[in-house]
Amino acid sequence: MKTGRLEAFSDGVLAIVITIMVLEMKAPEDTTFKGLLSVAPIFISYLLSFIYLGVYWNNHHHLMQVTQKVNGKILWANLHLLFWLSLIPFTTSWIGEDSHHTVALPVATYGFVLLMCAVAYFILERVLIAYHDENFALSKLCKSTVKDYISVGVYIISIPLAFVNTWLSIACYVLVALIWLMPDKQLEDLMEDM
Amino acid sequence: MKTGRLEAFSDGVLAIVITIMVLEMKAPEDTTFKGLLSVAPIFISYLLSFIYLGVYWNNHHHLMQVTQKVNGKILWANLHLLFWLSLIPFTTSWIGEDSHHTVALPVATYGFVLLMCAVAYFILERVLIAYHDENFALSKLCKSTVKDYISVGVYIISIPLAFVNTWLSIACYVLVALIWLMPDKQLEDLMEDM
Amino acid sequence: MKTGRLEAFSDGVLAIVITIMVLEMKAPEDTTFKGLLSVAPIFISYLLSFIYLGVYWNNHHHLMQVTQKVNGKILWANLHLLFWLSLIPFTTSWIGEDSHHTVALPVATYGFVLLMCAVAYFILERVLIAYHDENFALSKLCKSTVKDYISVGVYIISIPLAFVNTWLSIACYVLVALIWLMPDKQLEDLMEDM
Amino acid sequence: MKTGRLEAFSDGVLAIVITIMVLEMKAPEDTTFKGLLSVAPIFISYLLSFIYLGVYWNNHHHLMQVTQKVNGKILWANLHLLFWLSLIPFTTSWIGEDSHHTVALPVATYGFVLLMCAVAYFILERVLIAYHDENFALSKLCKSTVKDYISVGVYIISIPLAFVNTWLSIACYVLVALIWLMPDKQLEDLMEDM
Repeated sequence: MKTGRLEAFSDGVLAIVITIMVLEMKAPEDTTFKGLLSVAPIFISYLLSFIYLGVYWNNHHHLMQVTQKVNGKILWANLHLLFWLSLIPFTTSWIGEDSHHTVALPVATYGFVLLMCAVAYFILERVLIAYHDENFALSKLCKSTVKDYISVGVYIISIPLAFVNTWLSIACYVLVALIWLMPDKQLEDLMEDM
Repeated sequence: MKTGRLEAFSDGVLAIVITIMVLEMKAPEDTTFKGLLSVAPIFISYLLSFIYLGVYWNNHHHLMQVTQKVNGKILWANLHLLFWLSLIPFTTSWIGEDSHHTVALPVATYGFVLLMCAVAYFILERVLIAYHDENFALSKLCKSTVKDYISVGVYIISIPLAFVNTWLSIACYVLVALIWLMPDKQLEDLMEDM
Repeated sequence: MKTGRLEAFSDGVLAIVITIMVLEMKAPEDTTFKGLLSVAPIFISYLLSFIYLGVYWNNHHHLMQVTQKVNGKILWANLHLLFWLSLIPFTTSWIGEDSHHTVALPVATYGFVLLMCAVAYFILERVLIAYHDENFALSKLCKSTVKDYISVGVYIISIPLAFVNTWLSIACYVLVALIWLMPDKQLEDLMEDM
Repeated sequence: MKTGRLEAFSDGVLAIVITIMVLEMKAPEDTTFKGLLSVAPIFISYLLSFIYLGVYWNNHHHLMQVTQKVNGKILWANLHLLFWLSLIPFTTSWIGEDSHHTVALPVATYGFVLLMCAVAYFILERVLIAYHDENFALSKLCKSTVKDYISVGVYIISIPLAFVNTWLSIACYVLVALIWLMPDKQLEDLMEDM
């Protein structure tokens, strides 16, 4: 079995997930700047989720490029990842409504789904390695990097943190997104400087 | 005619069908755990339908891999399958609303659409075999397996069962989904042990 | 320029157009057979539009198979076709609501959009032939068949007919859909017998 | 890294963005010509946005045809473009509602998103050229044409213009769309004649 159709299906699902979030940004009745500002929370949560889904699409792209063959287990590990990613529009719209970004549960739920996406991605990597044991490129790529450890660590902290202060929790999500946007080299230099 | 575009179109439709179901999970107004629990029925029905659509995507993927050529009949048999699969978001949202999982008709309708999907898949297999008579791989793959017989049998039972007790009917749907998730070998061992 | 990406984009748009129509079938509040019957008009209009879009996808598929190269004009002729096809979910939901299938304007509008789709498809064929003049296969395929003439003729009749009796008009749309579902040979035999 | 999957993902997102706009055209309750006319503003704004997205898809298509390889920066420059394009359905539905086309802010916001799309496309071109420095075809294609300068110039003018008279602003958007629809040669002849 080749990876072509798995990639096509994943691209389709990711393209839809990343795009349907914008359906939550309803055109405001109020046509003043105040009306436009009222969509700011959902806009910002959309922007953040767009970056996260972009990161997953990029990483998935890289992972599949070194994958040579797939089996039933890999198909299901991939569907499992898509399932959690498909919940991001739900958590994005929950966090983006009214002043829900100041309420603990929506913010914690947002982090929980991100954590489960990271776990699902980790499982997909393990299943791929198990099936490609001789494949050095894949094992090397899948070696959990400092980004992976920071992400999962920050998610685990940010979920309970939402019940203390939602802004700290949101700052964590923004931080992780920024870390992923940063090229690997720059990040290493930054870590050394600290 | 080659299978490339048929696969691409089917992937597109399946990716949309599997993803738009999540649009039914509206972000709850209530931001307490009670509010989050209120989306549990639609979440669980989404999870179940996601697994079913994942199974169909996997099986369709396998079927197309041994298919070498397509004709007009096959294109329409495939569209017929996509039609019934496209109704799953409707039955999923009907069963997932409020306490509809305790009402006979939505539960029976959910099973009826699953039954029609199975019938449409069976027709697609027959049409493919008729066009590839010399192709051993396809005939072998399409040999109705124990999974097919159990599935159709359970669907036929579970539709009237919904009018007796919806929970029994739902248990049937969950059972079929689990059977499909189970690798073939494990299932055979289990059947022998019984 | 090759046809690959034009096909992929068209498949994407057609897959979305054919699938989002089902979003109009809202799960009824009423969980009795009466409630289920209330979605019958939208279900039947969905089924009819699904067949029409399936026919366009099939024909587009065949057309692109004999197309070797595309230019800017062809890209726009194709987008023009996709534009009219993308209006089908609108007319489908208008005709499918309440008892709108008994009101002249929604039924006539449904036919008008079908007519414009047929015109746009005809333009696409002409633009393709003009760019492939030496290509015999394409010219032969694009030779307007009896089906094309019947379709356009029936659309033109059925639009004013909707203002006389909507059922006659709807019967026309069903007839055209059935003609397209019929294999070419069978149709020829039928015409000879008449 | 090759361009295949980047194109597939972009096609997916563009196909969805171009299609979901039609979801904003709700079937009117009123089944008279007056009812149909009530969807005219959203229909016209849909048509305009459809043309803009068609232009971007065409240009993206051409750009990717001369692109031989992609890196992380290019993937993100492309996602950045898709982000702004994905906001077009939002501004389209805002401008298309009721009489919002006569209100300054929705019309100015529509132009602002178009301007950001043009900027994002310009960035994508720069990033591509920087990575393909030896590639003549790309540099030549990316040479900002008269169309690019006119577009950006008109967008910058039309945003403040919306606060003076929205119709002038809308005329600007229509003008830019028409310029892009016009083949390059014809445009050059027209410019010479002036």
